[in-house]
Amino acid sequence: MAQLLRDQFSTLLTQVAIFEGFSLEELQQYSDKAIGKSYTKKQIVYLQDEKAEWAYVIQRGWVKLFRETLDGDEAVVDILTTGQIFGDTAIFNDGCYACSSEVVEDAVIYQIPLSVLNAHITTNNKLALNMLHNMSYFRKKQTRELEHMKVQNAPQRIGCFLLQLYKPRTGPSALIHLPYDKILIAARLGMQPETFSRALLKLQHETGIRIQGATVEIDDISVLTDYSCSSCSSTHPSAEC
Amino acid sequence: MAQLLRDQFSTLLTQVAIFEGFSLEELQQYSDKAIGKSYTKKQIVYLQDEKAEWAYVIQRGWVKLFRETLDGDEAVVDILTTGQIFGDTAIFNDGCYACSSEVVEDAVIYQIPLSVLNAHITTNNKLALNMLHNMSYFRKKQTRELEHMKVQNAPQRIGCFLLQLYKPRTGPSALIHLPYDKILIAARLGMQPETFSRALLKLQHETGIRIQGATVEIDDISVLTDYSCSSCSSTHPSAEC
Repeated sequence: MAQLLRDQFSTLLTQVAIFEGFSLEELQQYSDKAIGKSYTKKQIVYLQDEKAEWAYVIQRGWVKLFRETLDGDEAVVDILTTGQIFGDTAIFNDGCYACSSEVVEDAVIYQIPLSVLNAHITTNNKLALNMLHNMSYFRKKQTRELEHMKVQNAPQRIGCFLLQLYKPRTGPSALIHLPYDKILIAARLGMQPETFSRALLKLQHETGIRIQGATVEIDDISVLTDYSCSSCSSTHPSAEC
Repeated sequence: MAQLLRDQFSTLLTQVAIFEGFSLEELQQYSDKAIGKSYTKKQIVYLQDEKAEWAYVIQRGWVKLFRETLDGDEAVVDILTTGQIFGDTAIFNDGCYACSSEVVEDAVIYQIPLSVLNAHITTNNKLALNMLHNMSYFRKKQTRELEHMKVQNAPQRIGCFLLQLYKPRTGPSALIHLPYDKILIAARLGMQPETFSRALLKLQHETGIRIQGATVEIDDISVLTDYSCSSCSSTHPSAEC
């Protein structure tokens, strides 16, 4: 990589949770060996169970992590964007990727050799601790997601998804922009498209929010909070959401 | 603790995943400061959001980790037994417990100061790496559980739960003993008791297994495997199950 690109990449890495607190100099070992690529929508980055040689850092765009069942159904595990890393945990999965990954909005993604990351973890306790914090964050996020699937109904789960996109501001009203298409939101929430459509109608009816295309208009955020968080172990805004 | 108890406790710790590869001598720092207690069924060990001062290691019995919603519903996060540690990840949760814990079968549980564990992680990279492997294991287990909730039906999920209790042996038949009562199994799988009962009847009807009290009789394990694993991203036996 040219020096300018290397510097840009090192700056991107400082935003990645597992490299928090690392200097640009310390991150040089990654940018020296990183490769940046452009991806178009629907391109596969890697497949589940494939031997893992790289970890990936998103500069821009969206990437879906998913698992495919023997019947051909798809379970969406996560949807990631700028500054997020994926594939890194293959280090703890016998060197194989635990999920498949597919680009869902045109993206620029850098890849770094897993061998460099693996060597670094075993010698640098700060990196191991950062990875522990990061993994703990995702474990809490998954615990919350499992809780929601067990105790929330479908409209409440969509409400919770919207609340996570809401940036607190002055006044009770809000305008939220959906980050990716509704079919993908349905899949992320583990709902069939028709269940999602019905639940979305019910949510609008019960809370008075209005959805037009990718725009969600909310007159009073507290109505949505009361509706969604009643079946949750904490109320919005929660540090875990 | 008396020397005999200390030695017994250190031996127990060698079974705990995060202490894999540690010598009895290295584990002495924990047994010197550990406290062992007996608990009866329904006793609370700690509550969600409580300030965390201890991590807990189960010598015998069963412990349920759960979260309670504002509406009073309960989401069971995990059910643990001998040789498993819990409360340790509070280190990565601002020093507070992320779940509540309750004894569900009479238990003996040791507690070790979180401060000792915390100090040890920051100086001993082997412990940090073991914790990363352990957390990665639980993350994969949760990912699998989320996948199942999204794509398996209720009878298939009960079938999968039974397969996880099955110890491979010669011949196609099997006898499985349910580890705790059916109401708790239903809660662990995130099902209402009546959904669980209906799904259990359907599972017996579709796969020919027989359930009498806590005993499950299976004539041909492959029928259960075909039935449950068709909606899963891997088939039994899987390293992740």
